[in-house]
Amino acid sequence: MKLACFNHYRVGVVVDAGIVDVTHVLPDFLDALPAQRLNWLIGHWSELESKVAAAAERGAALAPSDVNLLAANPGASQMFAAPVNYRKHIGELGDRAVVAAGRTAREQGFFLKATGSLIGSGSTIRLPKGSQRRFDHESELAVIIGREARDVPREHALEHVFGYACLIDGTMRIEKGHGEEERTMRKSFDTFTPLGPYVVTADEVGDAGALSNRLWVNGELRQSASTQDMIVGIAELIEMISSVVTLRPGDVIATGTPDGVGPIHPGDTVTMEIERVGRLSVSVGERESVSPRAY
Amino acid sequence: MKLACFNHYRVGVVVDAGIVDVTHVLPDFLDALPAQRLNWLIGHWSELESKVAAAAERGAALAPSDVNLLAANPGASQMFAAPVNYRKHIGELGDRAVVAAGRTAREQGFFLKATGSLIGSGSTIRLPKGSQRRFDHESELAVIIGREARDVPREHALEHVFGYACLIDGTMRIEKGHGEEERTMRKSFDTFTPLGPYVVTADEVGDAGALSNRLWVNGELRQSASTQDMIVGIAELIEMISSVVTLRPGDVIATGTPDGVGPIHPGDTVTMEIERVGRLSVSVGERESVSPRAY
Repeated sequence: MKLACFNHYRVGVVVDAGIVDVTHVLPDFLDALPAQRLNWLIGHWSELESKVAAAAERGAALAPSDVNLLAANPGASQMFAAPVNYRKHIGELGDRAVVAAGRTAREQGFFLKATGSLIGSGSTIRLPKGSQRRFDHESELAVIIGREARDVPREHALEHVFGYACLIDGTMRIEKGHGEEERTMRKSFDTFTPLGPYVVTADEVGDAGALSNRLWVNGELRQSASTQDMIVGIAELIEMISSVVTLRPGDVIATGTPDGVGPIHPGDTVTMEIERVGRLSVSVGERESVSPRAY
Repeated sequence: MKLACFNHYRVGVVVDAGIVDVTHVLPDFLDALPAQRLNWLIGHWSELESKVAAAAERGAALAPSDVNLLAANPGASQMFAAPVNYRKHIGELGDRAVVAAGRTAREQGFFLKATGSLIGSGSTIRLPKGSQRRFDHESELAVIIGREARDVPREHALEHVFGYACLIDGTMRIEKGHGEEERTMRKSFDTFTPLGPYVVTADEVGDAGALSNRLWVNGELRQSASTQDMIVGIAELIEMISSVVTLRPGDVIATGTPDGVGPIHPGDTVTMEIERVGRLSVSVGERESVSPRAY
């Protein structure tokens, strides 16, 4: 199944004709905390899957013009990410030290992104107004956790996966001398994590270990790889993260980006597509207000 | 007022005689998402403050043996932290490069900690079983955000503060050669962020810019400083973070640690106290299960 979050955090199922609103299947208490709806559904999927499927069959699809997609899971409680996790991406950013020391995601572990940076497909990545820094696209497969995971060995890790989505890991690059902020900060600006267009359940994706992952800027192909080029695979990432901190239903893992990372500018359109997971597209603009601290 | 979260996410007010349960003042829908109770109350404080205060006056205090404190705000959606933010702490960890380049929190910005690492006073920091790595205590003042903050200049920043708490920033140290994981990971183990004992509202604390901050291990004083030694003060931290990502009600900012950071071991008791904010105490033990990936 493909689950969408749209408008004021409504939950929908994607069918051939479009998106069917199934929000009425969810308990009423979520109306008071609507941003939690989809996250809660993911955590209660085994109880509700058949009701959701039935509602999707009965319902009529909305007109596309009536749907404004949000992040595939805007209420995620935690978002993890793998640094340096594709073979060809290593060294691309000129950091030879990383290559020399062999410091891939296996050695560096994971980092966090602020959940406040999530947006949906069709939305806009907003760069700090007037910034002279470089901002990059990174095309990634996102894993959405389905069941709590603590100290889970890799051979059982995939049982904890709910589904997958496309994720662009927006990044402000390091600038030697006057721009060496923490990685988590450089990747946590509001709007810097497009996630979507939908959450596709694991049964629909099947083996996620060999999917094509491509990204275009203004129609020009910039990144093209297969998830089989990951250094630390999905199961090992779950083992690694859950050995540190408990993964909760709805949590997001950005699995790292292949080579081809490059700059984005206001006015650009960035599109990415992962086989069987979907196609996500966002525009690039500037932040609406001038920040008191410039980056 | 001092707000406590305890037992199964009940909300209480601390009075002279102990803690009065005021959970009944909160709307019923929160019973379905109890971990969100205190976080929600913080976001709706202006509507509920007087009702909470009245309930605290009317109610009877619970016996201390009936109260099991949780993290001061277990439902926080985001947790930010300032690296290298006390003058004397710089260089203590032997990282001369940091000092030479003047890379304090002003240059490095902020990093994130996983909210899953939060625990309450009276609980146990659990180190990875059998680990040979070094784990440290870091004694910090935590700021709890009260109102959404986006691009807030420092002169208005304190209007967005709800209150304060004590925070221990548990940290696995870098080990050159085979232990150079991301900072966010080394600080995000389950139980590595004791936060409490309560959230003390800003009006009760007054000026948080000159509070004593002390930490003891097994009764021996290890850290002792004043929040006036912070390099980037509370208002500037809010300006800095909110220029990147929107701060939400209930979000936590760990403001950095002074000198005196040192190792903790299973069996230790770690106690910290911040003037007018409170006294938090935790024991140190080992993780219950053996992790499939050892640290």
